[in-house]
Amino acid sequence: MPGRSCLTKTRVRFGETDAAGIVFYPTFYVWFDVGTHALLRAAAGSLTDPHGRPRWPLPIVESGARFLVPLVCDDEIVIRSTVADIGTSSLRVEHVVSRAGDEVARGFEARVFIRREGERIVSAPIPDQLRAALNEPVSTEGWA
Amino acid sequence: MPGRSCLTKTRVRFGETDAAGIVFYPTFYVWFDVGTHALLRAAAGSLTDPHGRPRWPLPIVESGARFLVPLVCDDEIVIRSTVADIGTSSLRVEHVVSRAGDEVARGFEARVFIRREGERIVSAPIPDQLRAALNEPVSTEGWA
Amino acid sequence: MPGRSCLTKTRVRFGETDAAGIVFYPTFYVWFDVGTHALLRAAAGSLTDPHGRPRWPLPIVESGARFLVPLVCDDEIVIRSTVADIGTSSLRVEHVVSRAGDEVARGFEARVFIRREGERIVSAPIPDQLRAALNEPVSTEGWA
Amino acid sequence: MPGRSCLTKTRVRFGETDAAGIVFYPTFYVWFDVGTHALLRAAAGSLTDPHGRPRWPLPIVESGARFLVPLVCDDEIVIRSTVADIGTSSLRVEHVVSRAGDEVARGFEARVFIRREGERIVSAPIPDQLRAALNEPVSTEGWA
Repeated sequence: MPGRSCLTKTRVRFGETDAAGIVFYPTFYVWFDVGTHALLRAAAGSLTDPHGRPRWPLPIVESGARFLVPLVCDDEIVIRSTVADIGTSSLRVEHVVSRAGDEVARGFEARVFIRREGERIVSAPIPDQLRAALNEPVSTEGWA
Repeated sequence: MPGRSCLTKTRVRFGETDAAGIVFYPTFYVWFDVGTHALLRAAAGSLTDPHGRPRWPLPIVESGARFLVPLVCDDEIVIRSTVADIGTSSLRVEHVVSRAGDEVARGFEARVFIRREGERIVSAPIPDQLRAALNEPVSTEGWA
Repeated sequence: MPGRSCLTKTRVRFGETDAAGIVFYPTFYVWFDVGTHALLRAAAGSLTDPHGRPRWPLPIVESGARFLVPLVCDDEIVIRSTVADIGTSSLRVEHVVSRAGDEVARGFEARVFIRREGERIVSAPIPDQLRAALNEPVSTEGWA
Repeated sequence: MPGRSCLTKTRVRFGETDAAGIVFYPTFYVWFDVGTHALLRAAAGSLTDPHGRPRWPLPIVESGARFLVPLVCDDEIVIRSTVADIGTSSLRVEHVVSRAGDEVARGFEARVFIRREGERIVSAPIPDQLRAALNEPVSTEGWA
């Protein structure tokens, strides 16, 4: 059962295109990351600690996407990001990018909650409050 | 006498930060470019031809910036971009980036209108209609 | 049977890291794209026409990756890119990123050869000469 | 009297171009940053602490550049970065980007050495050993 979702509106930047005249494909993953951060913000407030470090460290372990329609500079797009699954330490988010209501790309991110033990990084349980907020079946909207 | 200005609202993306925990400085120039495209959009409509190429080709010849305050992930910022000077072929845009009303960086871009002659690129007069629209002392707002 | 492969050496740039202190994950796809262009260069020479446009237009239709080990600024890495499959119009490239001989990420790109018909983009057969050169089971090395 | 200099070889990546078919200009500042890190590496070894954080925190306070010739995908370039001035806390680096021996852009970065005092960032003297190594009038070469 899907949890929280976020709609993020943005516009294709000139710098996100390439010499083929369309969006350079890694940019879609940048947008997925924007969508996941929108979910975290909506669920749990501030994204950073006082040193600018992530409050919710969730590095990626897998991602993938299908690209259906090329986008060009200044296209207005919506990124719909949805919590698809939460395990003990793992979070799966699914993303759909649309333009004028038509899907242009879709993909996913698999992430793991971690903490640092000295110089080591180990997986850790997702904090209960964050888990509960990510599981709420509510939808919010914002801009990037 | 300054011409058209645009306020563009956006939010610092996680991918725009670096391992120092703050915004990686070339990103400010990406935002300046976003601001200049917002001016062109407000002045002259669509930014691209049907192949996704720039309708108003204005490559950069000089840019510069001063950075006053570091930004962190998710900071809400405003880019104020103002047409400072228009010559026959040249366009100078000045940009101020603010957070919560406080200036955090300022800079400029000097650009030249060009056209292609076969494989050569030559400077060309800025079209009258674009010039007139960029010179209008009006201000608009948008999001990036 | 795999075809041509390329080893591309590069170094993690400071701007490729994020506030978590590690490489921002969409960068891996940037490196995959670098690897595919290294294959095209080795197979078919110049990557661009006289206007800077791609000589071999191969937009992406799908990509994906698994991330095993985080990378930090200045890590020396090798991207091994291998032609995994060539169909009439389609090209599948597999990529392995290593540091000091250890695999840190692997992924793939599925691309389609296209041509423009006026304002439309249609898939087209991969030119025979390019196909033959991509199918050659040779390996080359370079830097990015 | 200029100090240490570094030549860094790299190649224009496809993702560094934009829909105009040439390099997106903020990329030149990314290359300047690469050049400054090459200077720090040559002068002082490892760029990061065990958490991936900068060992030599030198945030930017000002930068600027002139762009003479547009670059396209796959152009082989050299970034020549030279220590132009070192004050108590300040470092000025000048950068020249060339292709086939011809200068295509030049610019500078002004940076300040900092340390953290709790949540505050304050300027701090550049460590003597780093200063001495940056002042040495030697030149090294590498790839990015």
